[in-house]
Amino acid sequence: MDQMTWPEWKEKVAAGAPILIPVGSTEQHGPQLPLGTDVVIPRSICQRVAPAIGAIVAPAIAYGYKSHPKSGGGQAFPGTTSLDAHTLALVIHDIVCDLGQHGARRIALINGHFENAWPIVEGLNLAMRDLKRDGITDMVLLRLELGDFLYPETLTRIFPNGFPGTELEHASLLETSLMLALSPDLVRQERIPTDGPAKFPLYDRLPFDQTLVPPSGVLADARGSRAEIGEWMLRDHEELVTKALREGFGLS
Amino acid sequence: MDQMTWPEWKEKVAAGAPILIPVGSTEQHGPQLPLGTDVVIPRSICQRVAPAIGAIVAPAIAYGYKSHPKSGGGQAFPGTTSLDAHTLALVIHDIVCDLGQHGARRIALINGHFENAWPIVEGLNLAMRDLKRDGITDMVLLRLELGDFLYPETLTRIFPNGFPGTELEHASLLETSLMLALSPDLVRQERIPTDGPAKFPLYDRLPFDQTLVPPSGVLADARGSRAEIGEWMLRDHEELVTKALREGFGLS
Amino acid sequence: MDQMTWPEWKEKVAAGAPILIPVGSTEQHGPQLPLGTDVVIPRSICQRVAPAIGAIVAPAIAYGYKSHPKSGGGQAFPGTTSLDAHTLALVIHDIVCDLGQHGARRIALINGHFENAWPIVEGLNLAMRDLKRDGITDMVLLRLELGDFLYPETLTRIFPNGFPGTELEHASLLETSLMLALSPDLVRQERIPTDGPAKFPLYDRLPFDQTLVPPSGVLADARGSRAEIGEWMLRDHEELVTKALREGFGLS
Amino acid sequence: MDQMTWPEWKEKVAAGAPILIPVGSTEQHGPQLPLGTDVVIPRSICQRVAPAIGAIVAPAIAYGYKSHPKSGGGQAFPGTTSLDAHTLALVIHDIVCDLGQHGARRIALINGHFENAWPIVEGLNLAMRDLKRDGITDMVLLRLELGDFLYPETLTRIFPNGFPGTELEHASLLETSLMLALSPDLVRQERIPTDGPAKFPLYDRLPFDQTLVPPSGVLADARGSRAEIGEWMLRDHEELVTKALREGFGLS
Amino acid sequence: MDQMTWPEWKEKVAAGAPILIPVGSTEQHGPQLPLGTDVVIPRSICQRVAPAIGAIVAPAIAYGYKSHPKSGGGQAFPGTTSLDAHTLALVIHDIVCDLGQHGARRIALINGHFENAWPIVEGLNLAMRDLKRDGITDMVLLRLELGDFLYPETLTRIFPNGFPGTELEHASLLETSLMLALSPDLVRQERIPTDGPAKFPLYDRLPFDQTLVPPSGVLADARGSRAEIGEWMLRDHEELVTKALREGFGLS
Amino acid sequence: MDQMTWPEWKEKVAAGAPILIPVGSTEQHGPQLPLGTDVVIPRSICQRVAPAIGAIVAPAIAYGYKSHPKSGGGQAFPGTTSLDAHTLALVIHDIVCDLGQHGARRIALINGHFENAWPIVEGLNLAMRDLKRDGITDMVLLRLELGDFLYPETLTRIFPNGFPGTELEHASLLETSLMLALSPDLVRQERIPTDGPAKFPLYDRLPFDQTLVPPSGVLADARGSRAEIGEWMLRDHEELVTKALREGFGLS
Repeated sequence: MDQMTWPEWKEKVAAGAPILIPVGSTEQHGPQLPLGTDVVIPRSICQRVAPAIGAIVAPAIAYGYKSHPKSGGGQAFPGTTSLDAHTLALVIHDIVCDLGQHGARRIALINGHFENAWPIVEGLNLAMRDLKRDGITDMVLLRLELGDFLYPETLTRIFPNGFPGTELEHASLLETSLMLALSPDLVRQERIPTDGPAKFPLYDRLPFDQTLVPPSGVLADARGSRAEIGEWMLRDHEELVTKALREGFGLS
Repeated sequence: MDQMTWPEWKEKVAAGAPILIPVGSTEQHGPQLPLGTDVVIPRSICQRVAPAIGAIVAPAIAYGYKSHPKSGGGQAFPGTTSLDAHTLALVIHDIVCDLGQHGARRIALINGHFENAWPIVEGLNLAMRDLKRDGITDMVLLRLELGDFLYPETLTRIFPNGFPGTELEHASLLETSLMLALSPDLVRQERIPTDGPAKFPLYDRLPFDQTLVPPSGVLADARGSRAEIGEWMLRDHEELVTKALREGFGLS
Repeated sequence: MDQMTWPEWKEKVAAGAPILIPVGSTEQHGPQLPLGTDVVIPRSICQRVAPAIGAIVAPAIAYGYKSHPKSGGGQAFPGTTSLDAHTLALVIHDIVCDLGQHGARRIALINGHFENAWPIVEGLNLAMRDLKRDGITDMVLLRLELGDFLYPETLTRIFPNGFPGTELEHASLLETSLMLALSPDLVRQERIPTDGPAKFPLYDRLPFDQTLVPPSGVLADARGSRAEIGEWMLRDHEELVTKALREGFGLS
Repeated sequence: MDQMTWPEWKEKVAAGAPILIPVGSTEQHGPQLPLGTDVVIPRSICQRVAPAIGAIVAPAIAYGYKSHPKSGGGQAFPGTTSLDAHTLALVIHDIVCDLGQHGARRIALINGHFENAWPIVEGLNLAMRDLKRDGITDMVLLRLELGDFLYPETLTRIFPNGFPGTELEHASLLETSLMLALSPDLVRQERIPTDGPAKFPLYDRLPFDQTLVPPSGVLADARGSRAEIGEWMLRDHEELVTKALREGFGLS
Repeated sequence: MDQMTWPEWKEKVAAGAPILIPVGSTEQHGPQLPLGTDVVIPRSICQRVAPAIGAIVAPAIAYGYKSHPKSGGGQAFPGTTSLDAHTLALVIHDIVCDLGQHGARRIALINGHFENAWPIVEGLNLAMRDLKRDGITDMVLLRLELGDFLYPETLTRIFPNGFPGTELEHASLLETSLMLALSPDLVRQERIPTDGPAKFPLYDRLPFDQTLVPPSGVLADARGSRAEIGEWMLRDHEELVTKALREGFGLS
Repeated sequence: MDQMTWPEWKEKVAAGAPILIPVGSTEQHGPQLPLGTDVVIPRSICQRVAPAIGAIVAPAIAYGYKSHPKSGGGQAFPGTTSLDAHTLALVIHDIVCDLGQHGARRIALINGHFENAWPIVEGLNLAMRDLKRDGITDMVLLRLELGDFLYPETLTRIFPNGFPGTELEHASLLETSLMLALSPDLVRQERIPTDGPAKFPLYDRLPFDQTLVPPSGVLADARGSRAEIGEWMLRDHEELVTKALREGFGLS
């Protein structure tokens, strides 16, 4: 979208083109992955998925909700730069409302940062409420968490001993493999640490006991990451996200 | 910054590296320039300027304050996607505070979208106030409006008949030339319109009389745009912004 | 706490008594369970757990964050009465800050409504930030999601064919059994429906297609609910929550 | 309401049932009354009044607006746990709007905590404004301050020497007698203090001179409190509140 | 204060001069009094009181909290122009904090509009909290409701048959007499209406039944208003407010 | 407006009378001008302009947005008393919405304080959005910056050596001359300083280096100020503002 002119945008949107908004973060991803990992991944998926459904990819939201210790290592890591929940919800709200004012009726938020999920939910709710007040009643909004769009068989193939779960996978095998497939030059493979996995109590505690997080910031284990695994994931993501968008937007 | 790992970021910031945050918009820029023009330009300047002062370029803020009719054609143009002033101020506030919490003490906002100026001012003020409450008293924050960083001689060379002023230059000769120098593939030179320049009354009126804006969205005139002019501007920007950052941050 | 006088409260808190705050909702729980189910359960757990650790049970927060279709049937059900995320975060923030101002240094939020989790996280974060600004630096805050505090063996005993997951369990076997153990008079066992389980797409869609939720509002299946199962759960909750609170608060 | 299932709620509301929302506080009430006094009283009145008009009693709002020194002793008393005015107004707004979205058209807020009055007024105003924007134009909202619903003769009977006024009555004869009638087990009659009454200057001063409030927190005098007096008051409250609700809601 | 230069202000404040802030409204005051009545009165009192205690009178806050039907006729009257409670609280907060940042340590809000009382209370509370966070711990804030500063004997002299109470006195005998004393040219004595007094139910109802308010907007009765009565009141106000300010600020 | 009764206001507004709202500040204006300078000037212009177009002058907004060092000397000067941007935007929003609810359809904000411009823009935008939601679609809002309404010839006459620009003119020749014409008794001519003009870097820096601002607070030069110059300006303002209002409101 940022490379289109406004007349081009107008024409495509008038023809029903969906808008895909990648939502990411600026967050520690271990010593081997860049701070922008959560932006690179959803933006890439959006770009791969867009042509098949004639979608427009909007500029990514590059600052996300605060990192939670159990799913991202927490705010204590240098470089992690985050928004309050209310701020992010307002950002989502404002963008969605403005797109609606300009004619967009199909908008999907493609999220690559676990913690963003609920502020996005709230932002979409607030936008839907205000759009109705402004007389726009035919908007369709979708929210997709990238981590959900993998075939179980793929996970089994990657984790023959069982999948540890989306949360703990922060900066671990899945994200590292994805980045190896998408942007190998941004991965410092030689820095993949061995200090995980994290073991967390069932509850949250503030102030957080930072010794519970491996010093590297990798929550599970990134060893064994390969571009090939990333390619498997990309194939799943591309296929399943496309299918979800078609279904969710009611596209043939 | 989005390509750095957190240990790399930590090390550079601990050594005093400034953070440069490009602030832009997603806004109509006529039929010849892309919606992301206001992001491309400050991001490029930041990247050119950063090495000389050892700075880190943070992810750009890609959605800006609402387009004003007299300086950007207004919110009526499809594709223009903006934030409320309070939302943008909170975004600035949250990012600056979080950077401060992680040790950054020199942060510059490099703005490429005229309307952002005041929400940035407010965001920086709010951040400064809260940082003090959090015991951080040695932060230095800078705000630079790119349009200010041109030698008068350059403007004279570009506009031998007199410079129409920063506001009216939206999507006009300066921005088009800059984009021709930075990203010629994103410029549709054949679409440069001839319907300007805009003539505005001295006052604002809501609802805005959209007939006052040239239908193309180009406020002045983009004809005559050349990559060479863009190169002159880049040279000025690079030199003068570098100088300003050195001075503002007290760097030798 | 609501039955204590202020001198009694003061004395206990001065002696280090933790405060337990049950957080619930007013939300549909199928035709067999009352709207207040998510309050009854955490309040009861708090009351059972409090004596062992000398804790004070604060008044429950009886209105929670908006019901999400996939975990609570959604806002479409009559009687579901909810707060915006920002409102709930402020409520949490204000209460925690005020308790801190009055000397409490150990506060645990015991949550019985899935959707509350993130607004509680944010509210606690905001409170921690402001308490520090007010010079209170020795506060310990805990957040517990009741659903996490079951032994895996108990789940296996209850679901010999596999546990469908916390989200889908809304108004289903677990909650109904718990209520049969806690407040059998509030359960309309003869109304337990047979229209589940819900099958949701992987993504969220607004407006939500309400036909995806069983008309009863029971997301999985409540048949087979028994007070005995509820007793097993209560035993787990009591034991594991007590253990977590001791550990989290550093109590001997 | 918290004991009803959603189909029961739906049916009653569809038939026009009013919703009564008790609004209270968690606030010091002297050494003889519990912190939850302001919740116990309005909740009890609501429960007594509801059957006559077929009303539903919603869960009480248990945390109220900040205690004011002249009417509640002020925030300095341990155990008093309060919300900011804006938070409470948002809570009222969100609850009323959500009830409206689900079909309720008659809602009454029954307030037992003096300081809540204005945040309730504002919350109701904001809700009315938003409900209109959402197309709901036939909502009727009532606000009742319990203290207003006594016959003058009753006050004369209780205070043969003249009624000192609602504000000063905090934790004094009226509230203590009411609690003796409603929940005698929650009253520590032997702790009724003798240190009042408070004498306040005509103005407010921050920081408040806490020596102006009797150390016990009882603003006037609670001696002479009797369950019988509480019964008189309950009779008045029940009769007059019922009458007000009938009239305000236009019930026959 | 608006007539002082900044060096003059600085000098007086450094010497301990209190700041008096008149808070009023723009609100209907019947057919005989101007919309600015609630500003004229507290501003005049401040100006009369200031010399005796060496105080500075700040610019009046001319827009107040929403008019309440029972105390001001309500928002339905044309010309009544009001702020939301949160807005007014923020205005108070911002002004008080800024005065504090510049050295003022004694600030009094002199309120002439009944409905402003609670937003002022909240604004002062929020300011006190933030001032403490900014290290200012010796601020003294006062709030005075003008209506409270009359000798009982004066009220008896004015109302030999009993005083109807502050609330109902809106645009009635007291305010009209005060304006006759202060600004007789602003009073349309020939328009004093005869349609009161209002009779209100004990409860609030939204939407308000506007027929309960006399069509003129005068809630009680303004007949018999005389400048002489206004002079009595001014004398009381001047004497009692001065005394209160001396006492509250600890001035000799 | 504050001197009108509500029936008078109602009648004029029903007949289409525009409302003019002067927006100013309480801000240092050097040792020669009072803190209220930015209120005196726009209020006077409004009063002069109103009769010709049958307009009503509303009470001035006397507290404005924070002073910026480059255009007002900054917040460091004692006596400068300002609002946050969000607060001021809400004030504008609330007032405009309320006027709209009462029938006003032509409202102009006449701004005399440079920094207010953008919070006014935002406030008007927010009001327009909400007024539409409330079904008011024929509102016309104008915003005028007083400094723009001077004939170029007048500026040439005043500054034969070239006009230094609106921003730097703070408390300088133009404002001082205007005040000499409007309120000579409020000008301390003998205190006009000689320490300017200020020289600012092209960028903003926080914390601001206060040595860049002349200690007097006069940014350019106030010497040579004369009432006659003020008269020239008043004539321009009156003529050009009247013309703009006629045109903007579509008045014949």
